[in-house]
Amino acid sequence: TAGEGSELEQGLCVIVDSFYRYAEGPPGAKALDQAAFQNLLSNELSHQLTVRPGYWHPKATRKLDANKDQKISFDEYWQLIAWICQVIRHRDYNE
Amino acid sequence: TAGEGSELEQGLCVIVDSFYRYAEGPPGAKALDQAAFQNLLSNELSHQLTVRPGYWHPKATRKLDANKDQKISFDEYWQLIAWICQVIRHRDYNE
Repeated sequence: TAGEGSELEQGLCVIVDSFYRYAEGPPGAKALDQAAFQNLLSNELSHQLTVRPGYWHPKATRKLDANKDQKISFDEYWQLIAWICQVIRHRDYNE
Repeated sequence: TAGEGSELEQGLCVIVDSFYRYAEGPPGAKALDQAAFQNLLSNELSHQLTVRPGYWHPKATRKLDANKDQKISFDEYWQLIAWICQVIRHRDYNE
């Protein structure tokens, strides 16, 4: 659903789309189970950013899973996104 | 600095890069002044998402400027990014 728009707008759509491409569950409560989250890490976040699945599983995933339901909700996924952007910010702009 | 990587990784870099393309100030304290923020809205966020500068200025910008220093810091910009992603999420996935 990225479609038209600026590079930034497309990037925002990709963030949302990436979650829902892997999420499962009833409407309004879609989430990533352990396997889906590992697939998302492996396929979407292991190239440039070296967020390696081996590093994440299982301790970091548990930390991300704030409500301890064994699933990663959109809000929990958002914490990962925020964290990675801080890593990029530090790496590329030293802030 | 997007370079290689998945579409998601590139999107994350674009979010960070977009801020720093408009931000000014000393290293470690770069921020968007009013003019820079309006330019970012106009150039990067007004195509697909209809975040129109006219809508934002001045009340919404003041709300975003949490510490009321008349500038938008990276953390304040991040609140805007989070808000837009929630709008996309609702629009495209009804969540």
